[in-house]
Amino acid sequence: MNVARKNIERADTAVIAGLAEMGVSTCHEALGRTGLMSARMRPIFRGTRLAASAITVLVPPADNWMIHVAIEMLREGDILVVAPYSPSDAGYFGDLLATSVRAHGGIGLVIDGGVRDIADLTDIGFPVWSTSICAQGTVKETLGQVNAPLTCAGVLVNPGDIIVADDDGVAVVPRERASDTLERARMRTAEEKQKREQLAAGASSLDLYGLRERLAAKGLRYE
Amino acid sequence: MNVARKNIERADTAVIAGLAEMGVSTCHEALGRTGLMSARMRPIFRGTRLAASAITVLVPPADNWMIHVAIEMLREGDILVVAPYSPSDAGYFGDLLATSVRAHGGIGLVIDGGVRDIADLTDIGFPVWSTSICAQGTVKETLGQVNAPLTCAGVLVNPGDIIVADDDGVAVVPRERASDTLERARMRTAEEKQKREQLAAGASSLDLYGLRERLAAKGLRYE
Amino acid sequence: MNVARKNIERADTAVIAGLAEMGVSTCHEALGRTGLMSARMRPIFRGTRLAASAITVLVPPADNWMIHVAIEMLREGDILVVAPYSPSDAGYFGDLLATSVRAHGGIGLVIDGGVRDIADLTDIGFPVWSTSICAQGTVKETLGQVNAPLTCAGVLVNPGDIIVADDDGVAVVPRERASDTLERARMRTAEEKQKREQLAAGASSLDLYGLRERLAAKGLRYE
Amino acid sequence: MNVARKNIERADTAVIAGLAEMGVSTCHEALGRTGLMSARMRPIFRGTRLAASAITVLVPPADNWMIHVAIEMLREGDILVVAPYSPSDAGYFGDLLATSVRAHGGIGLVIDGGVRDIADLTDIGFPVWSTSICAQGTVKETLGQVNAPLTCAGVLVNPGDIIVADDDGVAVVPRERASDTLERARMRTAEEKQKREQLAAGASSLDLYGLRERLAAKGLRYE
Amino acid sequence: MNVARKNIERADTAVIAGLAEMGVSTCHEALGRTGLMSARMRPIFRGTRLAASAITVLVPPADNWMIHVAIEMLREGDILVVAPYSPSDAGYFGDLLATSVRAHGGIGLVIDGGVRDIADLTDIGFPVWSTSICAQGTVKETLGQVNAPLTCAGVLVNPGDIIVADDDGVAVVPRERASDTLERARMRTAEEKQKREQLAAGASSLDLYGLRERLAAKGLRYE
Amino acid sequence: MNVARKNIERADTAVIAGLAEMGVSTCHEALGRTGLMSARMRPIFRGTRLAASAITVLVPPADNWMIHVAIEMLREGDILVVAPYSPSDAGYFGDLLATSVRAHGGIGLVIDGGVRDIADLTDIGFPVWSTSICAQGTVKETLGQVNAPLTCAGVLVNPGDIIVADDDGVAVVPRERASDTLERARMRTAEEKQKREQLAAGASSLDLYGLRERLAAKGLRYE
Repeated sequence: MNVARKNIERADTAVIAGLAEMGVSTCHEALGRTGLMSARMRPIFRGTRLAASAITVLVPPADNWMIHVAIEMLREGDILVVAPYSPSDAGYFGDLLATSVRAHGGIGLVIDGGVRDIADLTDIGFPVWSTSICAQGTVKETLGQVNAPLTCAGVLVNPGDIIVADDDGVAVVPRERASDTLERARMRTAEEKQKREQLAAGASSLDLYGLRERLAAKGLRYE
Repeated sequence: MNVARKNIERADTAVIAGLAEMGVSTCHEALGRTGLMSARMRPIFRGTRLAASAITVLVPPADNWMIHVAIEMLREGDILVVAPYSPSDAGYFGDLLATSVRAHGGIGLVIDGGVRDIADLTDIGFPVWSTSICAQGTVKETLGQVNAPLTCAGVLVNPGDIIVADDDGVAVVPRERASDTLERARMRTAEEKQKREQLAAGASSLDLYGLRERLAAKGLRYE
Repeated sequence: MNVARKNIERADTAVIAGLAEMGVSTCHEALGRTGLMSARMRPIFRGTRLAASAITVLVPPADNWMIHVAIEMLREGDILVVAPYSPSDAGYFGDLLATSVRAHGGIGLVIDGGVRDIADLTDIGFPVWSTSICAQGTVKETLGQVNAPLTCAGVLVNPGDIIVADDDGVAVVPRERASDTLERARMRTAEEKQKREQLAAGASSLDLYGLRERLAAKGLRYE
Repeated sequence: MNVARKNIERADTAVIAGLAEMGVSTCHEALGRTGLMSARMRPIFRGTRLAASAITVLVPPADNWMIHVAIEMLREGDILVVAPYSPSDAGYFGDLLATSVRAHGGIGLVIDGGVRDIADLTDIGFPVWSTSICAQGTVKETLGQVNAPLTCAGVLVNPGDIIVADDDGVAVVPRERASDTLERARMRTAEEKQKREQLAAGASSLDLYGLRERLAAKGLRYE
Repeated sequence: MNVARKNIERADTAVIAGLAEMGVSTCHEALGRTGLMSARMRPIFRGTRLAASAITVLVPPADNWMIHVAIEMLREGDILVVAPYSPSDAGYFGDLLATSVRAHGGIGLVIDGGVRDIADLTDIGFPVWSTSICAQGTVKETLGQVNAPLTCAGVLVNPGDIIVADDDGVAVVPRERASDTLERARMRTAEEKQKREQLAAGASSLDLYGLRERLAAKGLRYE
Repeated sequence: MNVARKNIERADTAVIAGLAEMGVSTCHEALGRTGLMSARMRPIFRGTRLAASAITVLVPPADNWMIHVAIEMLREGDILVVAPYSPSDAGYFGDLLATSVRAHGGIGLVIDGGVRDIADLTDIGFPVWSTSICAQGTVKETLGQVNAPLTCAGVLVNPGDIIVADDDGVAVVPRERASDTLERARMRTAEEKQKREQLAAGASSLDLYGLRERLAAKGLRYE
């Protein structure tokens, strides 16, 4: 019943790179406002924006054994996505594991739990989004799953889905919707660029978005 | 029933500038230890200290329409204070709205909810105090109120009240108490400056505040 | 019943300095994964790693009187550990008290409550680990205890225990276990250094820790 | 600066009784979906529905002195509304105070904090809505205010406002809007009664509320 | 993009009835300790144990329009499972909707959000598991989805999955695993019945589960 | 390092019975307002008031193995007090373990974590105070400690300390202070009985407690 899957499908590298440029808010909007992890999911340091294919890791609470197993499944540019069966903010991951992730081509971690050694992780620039910072040690006693679907911070993640992460949080782009999402995201970005200029010049968003009539129709009274 | 008020009274500009120098802790003390928003209200980046007249915006949960309406009410040096009818940490505000706020003279945002595009907001130095960082998109479907009294992070805010905000959080100085509060705050600051010097020189605060007798009277036993 | 104890036993200075080098995660592991304060306990700024003897301060909620008493008990290199009888995130401590702590030889603060003036504290580099940042003023009305055992963020602290604190949080090393803990921590650090190099070179942690057989025995199936 | 106001205006007794029949959800809707306290505010036992004029009590955290002062301001049918300056879930109120409240004509308590002796309070049927159940003792050291405006669980309460409370929580009806709110609430109740019968008979709410066309206009696709 | 699916597949009625007898804890164990919603999900009253096919409803925060649409998809014995796109504990559901659900054959509600009119719902015995009790009114402005996969309180729910709910919370049994789960649950229940008798007679669970040798092997020392 | 201690000292049976009559609030006051567990600690059903000697159980997160070990240490009238090394609200305890506890003379459970089968536990009247209700299954893989000191919901508990628990929560009376605490509690109860009668007769607590002068001295102004 406990399985570690070695081979998963990944999205096209160029599409993943494109999604990284778009960032979390734009990808989330391009997905019809879905796919966003809970606001409890925060980066341990600011300033990173990335996209990567998810290697998913389902772990028992306070047990990090499966992370060791999952690292061998990483390919260049992948990211680990870890979620426990039941909530526990123990510190499942630290600088030793980060070193190992990097050596296997991994570029970061998203975890619905705790992480430790954050001074070291910050020094070496290894990006982590977690729901907790906690040094509590974990055990290696019970099996979990690698590359099975899981729910992380409220969102379904299938192995190979694209994780987009930046200072705003983490969004999950389903693999089969990656190209389409990128296209929509680029259109949105182009529109926003134009609007930003108009707004900077003093235009009202009520005019730009054509909202004045609807305001009146809904009955807003100016005084 | 849904009203957007264009004209509000504001405190004297010099008084507002004075309160900015005093900061949150001092103003809160000068108000008799009232007016402090909940500790959940945090800046998205450190290092800003400001004071500004509040343009208040009451929004439905996860609906940011009224913010667009409120931006037209801003005058030079104002700040938006946004609170939803019921709690929702959706991302009501991002870099496009910040651009528009700036173009209308606004200098920041206080929101009992979520904000997004925080990397961009940090880059352009637009200060926000919020109870959440969240990219979740919002709609423009339901009316709210602009420049009505509201409760934000546990504190009543009337339009035109002075918002004082820094790394410690956010305090609200009622407009009609602004001058008086500034005066008390300056007295407190002067006293503290003197005390800081004495404490740095090794004096005991028990002596400075005359607390030794009361300690004995209350029955503290030294061993 | 309310007592302030002046003289406490402290661990050896060299041992304390040694524990500071080890950091929170390593000391916590060396203690058999005990002694870690709750993940709610966070530094107000990043980048400090220290160890110090605890001067413990039990305070009534929202009353900081006993902190003034405790400062006189500080010796060079000590740290204040403050916990309220019942939870309150009022701002018990600010830059004036920090000035006084420093003048008496203290090097920091750990508090299961709130702290304020954090911009100033950051400027002067006074490290604080707290469960809240909050400007709410406190009173000086009710007695508590100085240098009595207390529970802070879920961990028992006896006066003279060694507080180890860094970006990961705060751990408490019982005074009588200080030397032994340091020894174990150093062994662990040495082992980790070697493992880090092997992992960086691409070794699998499953091999380094000899985990492959147990995985098979537990029934992990690779696909 | 610390004031206890003896005389406040109250709404008409018949209007208050009418609001009690309407309950929290209906009054909240009749107020345009405003006036609802946070969902953290819960009854200590189920089955009570009441409305009463608010005697407001602003207390320091973990200090219940002002409640003793406020009890003398009660008139027949009033309710105490207690909020601390800063959050603390200490147990400000127990069966002795409840006995005193009843002897002065009071019929209940709403508190943004803790309450204790809840087995006794349940036995004597004294209704309390609180944000915490907690036995932590409080002191009588610092003044507060009686019958000043305050914010309780996120809502502004003026003395004399009508508190409506039931198993759903607590709503605040501003005194000057009491009659109007009652009228709207009764209309809503009448409409709901009719709709309940139609829905029980199997009618679709999409037809009753005329929502089908808007669904199509917004683009809902049935499959 | 917004779709309401009318026809979904359901599990066998007898299997669903069998799962209801097993209850949440047993089904969760039979699923390999998966499928359990967050502990925040609680019944509004105690004493119900049920199983039912899920009609899933994805709603915008604080907007209950799609619930009205979903009610028409109910068949005898179904249950509504409602989750918002982003967290909001508004009161999406009350006694009018419960009346309508019942008239369409539905037997309950599971909602990652708020519910109101709970005194009425308790009176008529309509079971609800929710993460909040809150009277805050909602709007009918924005579309969502009916019978799309969703994440509710941390667990993926596909339309037609079996919801098992009792006083312990809510578990989700994937439709295609329903029979197998029932079989495993029954085996477990049979084993537990036997163990309960042995334990009641004073047997040690260390003997019943054969744990003494492993305790010794792991190094437990009795004193 | 992992030890299970068989023999502990207990307080006098008559003293324990006396403390049970006093209840949580009174014992907590008699202890100088200390010893109260966090307000997160709640009974799974109302109406029980008990006192018992603590058998303490330190468990790894989501691992209930040590509870099985601890049950053998129970004597007639004892209570289990369980705390995990790091927070996890998994369901460590259910009706099978309750059956075993009863067979060994135990009368209840206090746990800083989750419990399940609460319908069954309620049916058989087995009292539990827990910080969570959660069905999540646990493992039996890692050792902990039995009858070692631990921190439970913020309070230090030594084996043999007296647990007092009722609808208000849980208080811990150190064994060596049991008699003294009982005596103080009885005095307090006697005083309260008299005051209750005076308050019921309409006396003001300001007079009973002699508070009017201090109010005036502190500067309360009546209006």
